[in-house]
Amino acid sequence: MARTASLSGFPEWLPQERLVELHVLDTLRKTFELHGFSSIETRAVETVGQLLRKGEIDKEVYGLSRLQDDEGEAAKSDKADPNALALHFDLTVPFARYVVENAGYLAFPFRRYQIQKVWRGERPQEGRAREFTQADIDIVGDGELPFRYDVEIALVIAEALRALPIPDFRLRINNRKLAEGFYRGIGLTDTAGVLRSIDKLEKIGAAKVAELLKSELGATDEQAGLALELATIRTEDTSFVDQVRALGVKDDLLDEGLNELEQVIQAAVQRAPGKVVADLSIARGLDYYTGTVVETVLVGHEQLGSICSGGRYDALASKGNRRFPGVGLSIGVTRLVSRILSQELVKASRSVPTAVLVALNSDDSWSAAQDIAAQLRGRGIATEVAAKAEKFGKQIKFADRRGIPFVWFTDDDGKHQVKDIRSGEQIDADPASWTPDEEDLYVRITTAG
Amino acid sequence: MARTASLSGFPEWLPQERLVELHVLDTLRKTFELHGFSSIETRAVETVGQLLRKGEIDKEVYGLSRLQDDEGEAAKSDKADPNALALHFDLTVPFARYVVENAGYLAFPFRRYQIQKVWRGERPQEGRAREFTQADIDIVGDGELPFRYDVEIALVIAEALRALPIPDFRLRINNRKLAEGFYRGIGLTDTAGVLRSIDKLEKIGAAKVAELLKSELGATDEQAGLALELATIRTEDTSFVDQVRALGVKDDLLDEGLNELEQVIQAAVQRAPGKVVADLSIARGLDYYTGTVVETVLVGHEQLGSICSGGRYDALASKGNRRFPGVGLSIGVTRLVSRILSQELVKASRSVPTAVLVALNSDDSWSAAQDIAAQLRGRGIATEVAAKAEKFGKQIKFADRRGIPFVWFTDDDGKHQVKDIRSGEQIDADPASWTPDEEDLYVRITTAG
Repeated sequence: MARTASLSGFPEWLPQERLVELHVLDTLRKTFELHGFSSIETRAVETVGQLLRKGEIDKEVYGLSRLQDDEGEAAKSDKADPNALALHFDLTVPFARYVVENAGYLAFPFRRYQIQKVWRGERPQEGRAREFTQADIDIVGDGELPFRYDVEIALVIAEALRALPIPDFRLRINNRKLAEGFYRGIGLTDTAGVLRSIDKLEKIGAAKVAELLKSELGATDEQAGLALELATIRTEDTSFVDQVRALGVKDDLLDEGLNELEQVIQAAVQRAPGKVVADLSIARGLDYYTGTVVETVLVGHEQLGSICSGGRYDALASKGNRRFPGVGLSIGVTRLVSRILSQELVKASRSVPTAVLVALNSDDSWSAAQDIAAQLRGRGIATEVAAKAEKFGKQIKFADRRGIPFVWFTDDDGKHQVKDIRSGEQIDADPASWTPDEEDLYVRITTAG
Repeated sequence: MARTASLSGFPEWLPQERLVELHVLDTLRKTFELHGFSSIETRAVETVGQLLRKGEIDKEVYGLSRLQDDEGEAAKSDKADPNALALHFDLTVPFARYVVENAGYLAFPFRRYQIQKVWRGERPQEGRAREFTQADIDIVGDGELPFRYDVEIALVIAEALRALPIPDFRLRINNRKLAEGFYRGIGLTDTAGVLRSIDKLEKIGAAKVAELLKSELGATDEQAGLALELATIRTEDTSFVDQVRALGVKDDLLDEGLNELEQVIQAAVQRAPGKVVADLSIARGLDYYTGTVVETVLVGHEQLGSICSGGRYDALASKGNRRFPGVGLSIGVTRLVSRILSQELVKASRSVPTAVLVALNSDDSWSAAQDIAAQLRGRGIATEVAAKAEKFGKQIKFADRRGIPFVWFTDDDGKHQVKDIRSGEQIDADPASWTPDEEDLYVRITTAG
């Protein structure tokens, strides 16, 4: 697993690694569909105008241009041209555009999952690729979206993550209303500025954040101290409410945020015990969130960064006077799978889908062997047929090299036998009825013991 | 289905349309895995040098450049710079690169399927998008690859297409050795030039192709006549062999090609009757094929163009002296799905994955409703919970609007009932055991009657 990508930041998996990724994707899809989320995909490409709609973004965007441009234009992408094309850097901005464009065809609240690649031209490092797969779920309402969906979506994600072969995890949840109301309540009116500073807490530490708050936002020692004290609150139950109250700040928005976060944590304590914490340091940088905000760490792998983030956004999508508030979370599939693979946290029961190789008795028996294979496939048994009637020993070696557990033999009298090449056991078998053990039928991905 | 993409050439499906696409993708994956093909994905991006490695290509390529380039370089992609990045235009060229890079980790003959988006900056038209999904299968050998895999791969594709909800189809198969040997045998040595001209047959007609052969390749009337006569041969069985022999041309390569094509057609007559024809007009343009070549049409939709193409390539991938010959076919998923949708060839049994909406008796019953939902999901029944305890009529209307067939009610005494809102039938039900009919459990995609 120590292979490095031939193009830095663009990881590619070997077939046996891809089996792990497929297992993760299939598991997510199954969980999302069981909760009534519809699949959609959006095009990989947005206009630069759409991507930069929310003003300055901190993502590095890849622009597109046609190499063979027959209009004789210079082959370039132009940041200044809002109609130029660029690759999307997340799935939320394209989804918001999709909802607005297709509002007349969607039934709201619209629940969708979306599993696609996204691209960011950032400097590649552990856990950060230039091309990576995200798996998003969002629920979007028409005009309004009950807060209960914030609770639901956190529970769905906790369930999805629990179904994956990954280490223990924690959803760290905060609420923008709580934070912004608190800052307002202590007299810091540039709440976005405070959030931006608090967001740097893990990176630069409390002392430097306090300096920033004082130098850039004009905070007093006391204000900076209170803002930092809020960010230290972290509880596994709803006791954060009392801890915030004890700081003595009064504000309506703060009350609203406290109430919302309390609902999320209360439900999580009951339905996803031990998986969720209220963490009042979570800020989510420059993004478009307006209420609930979430980050997720793998326990023991905290330095990997968040493997699932998102939150509530009330103003991302609108069409004239019509607003489409939403709440969503995004799993960093590539980041997760990279870690699973590099730490060898799982193993696959075999490296190919094939369960059976039908050996050839003679070169003329290929068509008869295909008939046997078709019967096996009809029962869901993945089967290959040998291409050449080499000596049986060679055909067995071929299966072994490909990782195929069973070899099927048919002699000139039409007698069938199947050999488990791991144990060497060879038994009579009928192509119309023989089936391998359940555990050998499909590739199984299990947590490494 | 008359919606047009908001960005020309970049189609996006509505959730109910995506269900059709998912069904197609799932069916292909299942067939491919049953035949022992492993999944891989390659990065969306190749270097320009890699993409143009085979010299001039007729595909329009999208170059990439970072909009926020911090080295102060001009934000442009440069055709002249072989290290510049560009989006792949097919999956065969990236696959060849992947095989060479990972040869030490793969077991040959390596069988893989690959389902991904590709991009071409061509003028969009019916059946031709700028972003589209391809589903490829290839088998690649190390040094040599028995011809039998050419036969097998055609049969796998025929089986995969037969499993799809699409109109009848025909694989039209030819062989480059046959054609090139024939041209050589009649004294036309620029065989690639002849192929390029013959490739235009459907577009410009026989008279103009004859003119091209004479003016550009110096063919005599007789040579042009014979080359065109070869291209008229089309048989559903192996009788093409006698028809070619009757033209009286002798050449070793021709013999080899005739023998190969005969093997493919013979196996297809037996194992995929009526689905395959020998069509000696098939040329496959500028591509890298060296033997078997395949195009596929939907019967009655011939003007849509080929929905599945490919063939044998002996020289696409090499590493020093080591060669990796391959054979592969590529299904144009987006082209197929566009046609299925625009002609309404299939229908989905419902528009969302959800089978059951658990209604709320009161706002406090949300958590209890989640317990019921969890029980149903545990048996694979996709379930949503209402967000608000509105009047039951409103909750039923909500389910109806979303396309959910069943609504679950629990009264204050804990008595459960489930209503099929299509028939109005309402019955007592136990959350621990109730299951909808098989046909209501999942969304089913069926051919429109």
